[in-house]
Amino acid sequence: MKENEPAKGVWPPAATPFHPDLSIDFERYIAHCHALLADGAHGLAVLGTTSEANSLDLGEREVVLERLVAAGIGAEKLLPGTGASSIGDAVRLTRHAASLGARGVLLLPPFYYKGVSDDGLFAFVSELIGRVGKSNLKIYLYNFPQMSGISWSPALVGHLIKSFPKTVVGLKDSSGDVAYMNRLLESYPGFNVFPSSEALLLAAMKKGAAGCISATANTQAGAIRALYDGWQGAEAEALSRAASAVRLLMQKFPLIAGVKAVIAERTKTPDWARVRPPLDPLSPAQRKELVAELSRLEAGAPA
Amino acid sequence: MKENEPAKGVWPPAATPFHPDLSIDFERYIAHCHALLADGAHGLAVLGTTSEANSLDLGEREVVLERLVAAGIGAEKLLPGTGASSIGDAVRLTRHAASLGARGVLLLPPFYYKGVSDDGLFAFVSELIGRVGKSNLKIYLYNFPQMSGISWSPALVGHLIKSFPKTVVGLKDSSGDVAYMNRLLESYPGFNVFPSSEALLLAAMKKGAAGCISATANTQAGAIRALYDGWQGAEAEALSRAASAVRLLMQKFPLIAGVKAVIAERTKTPDWARVRPPLDPLSPAQRKELVAELSRLEAGAPA
Repeated sequence: MKENEPAKGVWPPAATPFHPDLSIDFERYIAHCHALLADGAHGLAVLGTTSEANSLDLGEREVVLERLVAAGIGAEKLLPGTGASSIGDAVRLTRHAASLGARGVLLLPPFYYKGVSDDGLFAFVSELIGRVGKSNLKIYLYNFPQMSGISWSPALVGHLIKSFPKTVVGLKDSSGDVAYMNRLLESYPGFNVFPSSEALLLAAMKKGAAGCISATANTQAGAIRALYDGWQGAEAEALSRAASAVRLLMQKFPLIAGVKAVIAERTKTPDWARVRPPLDPLSPAQRKELVAELSRLEAGAPA
Repeated sequence: MKENEPAKGVWPPAATPFHPDLSIDFERYIAHCHALLADGAHGLAVLGTTSEANSLDLGEREVVLERLVAAGIGAEKLLPGTGASSIGDAVRLTRHAASLGARGVLLLPPFYYKGVSDDGLFAFVSELIGRVGKSNLKIYLYNFPQMSGISWSPALVGHLIKSFPKTVVGLKDSSGDVAYMNRLLESYPGFNVFPSSEALLLAAMKKGAAGCISATANTQAGAIRALYDGWQGAEAEALSRAASAVRLLMQKFPLIAGVKAVIAERTKTPDWARVRPPLDPLSPAQRKELVAELSRLEAGAPA
C-alpha cells in the first residue's frame, strides 16, 4: 500500500473511549487502534460517526490525530472524518489532517441546513478544496443521510469526480441503500466506494467496491479482513455468512453504544462502555442480551 | 428592561452579510443591527439559523459578539445562538456569550446524532450548564426540528425547567407546530416562549407568549413591534393581518436568501444578497418576483 494510492480494504471507524469526566482516554484509545491494526485492519477511519467525532470539540479532533501519529501509527494509515457545518471549521480540520499526511479525509456534507441543492453542496466542497490548498488532499465523501439529513446524489458525485479527479477519489456509504451504492459502483469505475456494513461487502466487492468501513469492524476486524482477502475464494460465502451474522445481531441494538459495550466486555473495562451525551449507553438488560447472543453466535450457534 | 429580566418582545435574528470572499462584512452587519434596533427591535437574536450561524466557524461566532459590543450595542440586547454538536464547542460559545454579559443564549440541541433520547439531551444540557459554571446564564431552548432533526419534547422542557429553574427560562419555537407551542404555553406559565413567525404572534400573545423571534423581522421589525405593543388594542387584528401578509409572501421563497435579497434591494447593496454555501441565493427570477410582490403588498394591495 503506497502512500499515494487510494485507501483499500478494511478501515474500522475506531470507537473513542472516555474517562468518567468524559475526556478522551487516550491510553485505551491508542491500545484499541493498535489492536485493530494487529487484527488485520488496513488502516483506521478515525473520527467518524462511530467514533462520536461530532461529539468531540474541534480541538480534540486535531489532538486525536496528533496522538495517533505520536504513538507510531503512520498517518498514511489514517482516514479521519473532517466534516463540519461550516466551511471554515471543515477547512481547519481538513488542512490539519492533510498536513499530518493522512491518507485522505472522510467528508460529511454540511449537516445543519436541510433541503440544500446539489449546487450549494458543490460550492461548499469546491470552496473547501480551494482553501485547503494541498495538492495531496484526497477526499472520500461520507454519505449518511440518516444522520446528516443530506445525501451526496449520484449526479453530484459525478460532477465532483469530473471537477476534482485527483482529489475526490471515493465515498463511504452508510445509507444502507444498496441501489444507491450499486449505482455509484456502476457509474464511476475506479471510484473507491466503501459500504458501511460487512453484510454488504461480498456483493459490493463483486461490483468493484474498495473495501469496508464498518462500525462493527471495531469488534471483528479480523473476520472482515478474512472476507476481504478471500472474497473470490472457496470460503467466501461462509466468511460472509459468519461476519454478517455478527453484524446483523449488533444492528438490533443502538450501534455505537453496542460496539462500546462489546469492547468493554472483552477488555474487562467497564469504562469502555461510556458514551458522550446526547448518546446513551446500553441499558444493563440490553448489554446482557447483546453479550449473551454474541457468545452464542461465536460458539457456533446457527445464525 | 432590566438586565436580569428575561428577554421579551421583538428580537430579530439578524442576517449576516458577506464580502465577495465570503468573509463577514462587519460594517454592513453592524449598520443592519443598529437599524433593527432603531426600527423597534427590543434586542437581537444574533447567530441563529437566519444568521447562517452554523455556516460560520467557531471563532467567527465569538468575533461577531465582540464586534457588536464594541460598536455600542449593549450585551444585554443580545441573545446569541451558541448551540453546537459537541458539548465542548457549545460550552466554549456559551461561556463566551455569558462572559460578555449577553441577555441569554439560544441553544440548539446537538444536531448530528438523530433518534437520541430525552435522557441523552438532558445530560447534554446538564453537562453544559455545569461546565459553563456561570450563575447568570440564561438559556432559551431553540426548537427547529426541520433543521436540527431533534425536538425539545414538552416533557423534556418541563424536566429542564424543574431542574434549572433560574437558567432554562425560555424557548424559541421554529417548528411552526402550533399545538406544540400551545402545549408549552399552557403547561409552563412564566416560561418565555417565542414563536418564530409574526403570523403566529397575536394568537400566541393571547396565550402568554413572550414575543417573537422571526427571520422576517429582518425586513419588518417596526411592523412586528407595533403588533407586539398593540396586541390588546383596537388595531391588533389589522396589525396582525398586515405583518402576516408580508411573512406569508416571504415564506413562499427560500427564507434566508429571500430576507437577504430584500435587504439588498432596500439598501441598494447587491452584496447583501450573498449567502454562504451550502445555501443558494435566490435566482434572478425569484428575486424579481419577491421584490415585485412585496412592493404590491406595501402599496396596499389586498393580501
